[in-house]
Amino acid sequence: MKKVAIGIDIGGTKTAFGVVDLDGNVLYKDFIATPKRGDVSLFIDLLVNGIKQMETYLHDNHHDYEILGIGIGAPNANYFRGTIEYAPNLAFKGVIPIKKMLEDKLPEFKTIVLTKDSNAAAIGEMMFGGAQNMKTFAMFTLGTGVGSGLVVNGKIVYGHDGFAGECGHSTLFPNGRKCGCGGLGHLEAYCSASGMKRTAFELLARDNSTTSLLSEKSFNELNSKLIFEAAEKGDPIALEVFELTGNWLGMALADTVNHMSPEAIFLFGGPTAAGDFIFTPTRKSLEAHLLPVFKGKVKLLPSMLKAGDAAIVGASALVYQEFN
Amino acid sequence: MKKVAIGIDIGGTKTAFGVVDLDGNVLYKDFIATPKRGDVSLFIDLLVNGIKQMETYLHDNHHDYEILGIGIGAPNANYFRGTIEYAPNLAFKGVIPIKKMLEDKLPEFKTIVLTKDSNAAAIGEMMFGGAQNMKTFAMFTLGTGVGSGLVVNGKIVYGHDGFAGECGHSTLFPNGRKCGCGGLGHLEAYCSASGMKRTAFELLARDNSTTSLLSEKSFNELNSKLIFEAAEKGDPIALEVFELTGNWLGMALADTVNHMSPEAIFLFGGPTAAGDFIFTPTRKSLEAHLLPVFKGKVKLLPSMLKAGDAAIVGASALVYQEFN
Repeated sequence: MKKVAIGIDIGGTKTAFGVVDLDGNVLYKDFIATPKRGDVSLFIDLLVNGIKQMETYLHDNHHDYEILGIGIGAPNANYFRGTIEYAPNLAFKGVIPIKKMLEDKLPEFKTIVLTKDSNAAAIGEMMFGGAQNMKTFAMFTLGTGVGSGLVVNGKIVYGHDGFAGECGHSTLFPNGRKCGCGGLGHLEAYCSASGMKRTAFELLARDNSTTSLLSEKSFNELNSKLIFEAAEKGDPIALEVFELTGNWLGMALADTVNHMSPEAIFLFGGPTAAGDFIFTPTRKSLEAHLLPVFKGKVKLLPSMLKAGDAAIVGASALVYQEFN
Repeated sequence: MKKVAIGIDIGGTKTAFGVVDLDGNVLYKDFIATPKRGDVSLFIDLLVNGIKQMETYLHDNHHDYEILGIGIGAPNANYFRGTIEYAPNLAFKGVIPIKKMLEDKLPEFKTIVLTKDSNAAAIGEMMFGGAQNMKTFAMFTLGTGVGSGLVVNGKIVYGHDGFAGECGHSTLFPNGRKCGCGGLGHLEAYCSASGMKRTAFELLARDNSTTSLLSEKSFNELNSKLIFEAAEKGDPIALEVFELTGNWLGMALADTVNHMSPEAIFLFGGPTAAGDFIFTPTRKSLEAHLLPVFKGKVKLLPSMLKAGDAAIVGASALVYQEFN
């Protein structure tokens, strides 16, 4: 009997889902668009339909299997309550009881688990990636925002209320850039993919640069991939964006080390594809900002999960974690 | 049979020790001067002598008792290794194997536990103070420095290396005031008792103030108690010191909430004697800097441990924690 789990990743634009085995192999995957507006119950119907198709596929192609449950990663998700609460990047407003809604539609699944997407990434890293055998580590996901999942003694830190691990909203520069959450100077406003774009525009404005490869792009066109490509061609503005981003990120990660003394910090997400461009200044700044007792002791590592599958794999790992 | 534990608090100027019962009552206490220079083995001899006197006292005055063990709180102490490592405020340099040295001299004690002083305070709060029945909370100790002890799921967060909970060295203002550790802009440089003194001197310099009650004091004379007394008399500089200190502390505590979502944050130490002067602006700033999902959910509380006994009581609680 092959044991498998279903992983669902609810993102701002699409919701990916798939079946993952105990070795982290994705046996099937698909996605639906996450609605930009409208009723959450329609979204649940579409998702349930996708899951039923997946079950049919499994039934037809893998004769001897057992689905242990469904794991869901989503922004602003609360593990304790099974809810998505006030997610700024989703159309579903207020408190959405996602777990309960799926349980009602899929009573054959006894285990449905929901957690924040960055926690799912951390659990995925622990089960299938570079954090196997680690007890205490941090995962930072760099994307539209900066997410984080903290693991202490082999368990995700949920905190008293279930929302722990919001390190992206820690203050980097008091009264600094406006963050998506409304706060000022948060890490996310500087070191997310969109933070990097903002940094590029600040530098273009500062230098009045017309020769940078980035000078041709509008604010809505520019992204961290284009900045990476420009850096590879030696563009000075792009190179400085990575330098500054790494300096700032390293400073913030040192605060996380002060809190929890992790064995390693993993970085995940689009900007990490830039490799040394981002890892070298981040590592240097992290070391520079560490207390003497921590210096040389904390590894800064790229996530070892395969980029395209990571979200599904991480969400499926939630289920396996429940059976540990 | 009355169960008791010995608590030892090694501080920069004195080392206090005492016997504490299961209700947190101090049955006996004494102290020796922590040496400013010289050999650590002489210090151990003095401490062992003090403990033996304490045993004699117990023997003569409490006939039916069992000493469960010795708990020690000390700066830069490592729980895993039983060492004090590179403590900037102690004369003992390098790595001192305190636990082993005491075990060799006091073989009758089977349980000797060492941890950072701020962790001992957190464990004391959990066993005897305001954190009873709390699973996830943070303790911040404001004194010469800013210490912290973080409790997640009822256990101190030691992290991978045993030194977690150094939140006082998180960056509040990048490239800001020089911290005792050599770093720049750390919380400790702003919100410790000595940080408050530095703030007062900045404000006196800014206003060229000759009429403040603080204008008569030298840098070496001024302390947080004098600032509190001046604030009580309505001194504007002193009042602004508390306002700024609270603003900054609240901002830093919000970062700790982002990490671990505690049920409460406890403040301990000299500056907290100022009551509302420090708690009101800190609470206001904390709330202002919290993400919407955390707003109104985190209590900011004074430590409920009796100031004079807290360090000994906290250290003794280490022993009881071992038997839980």
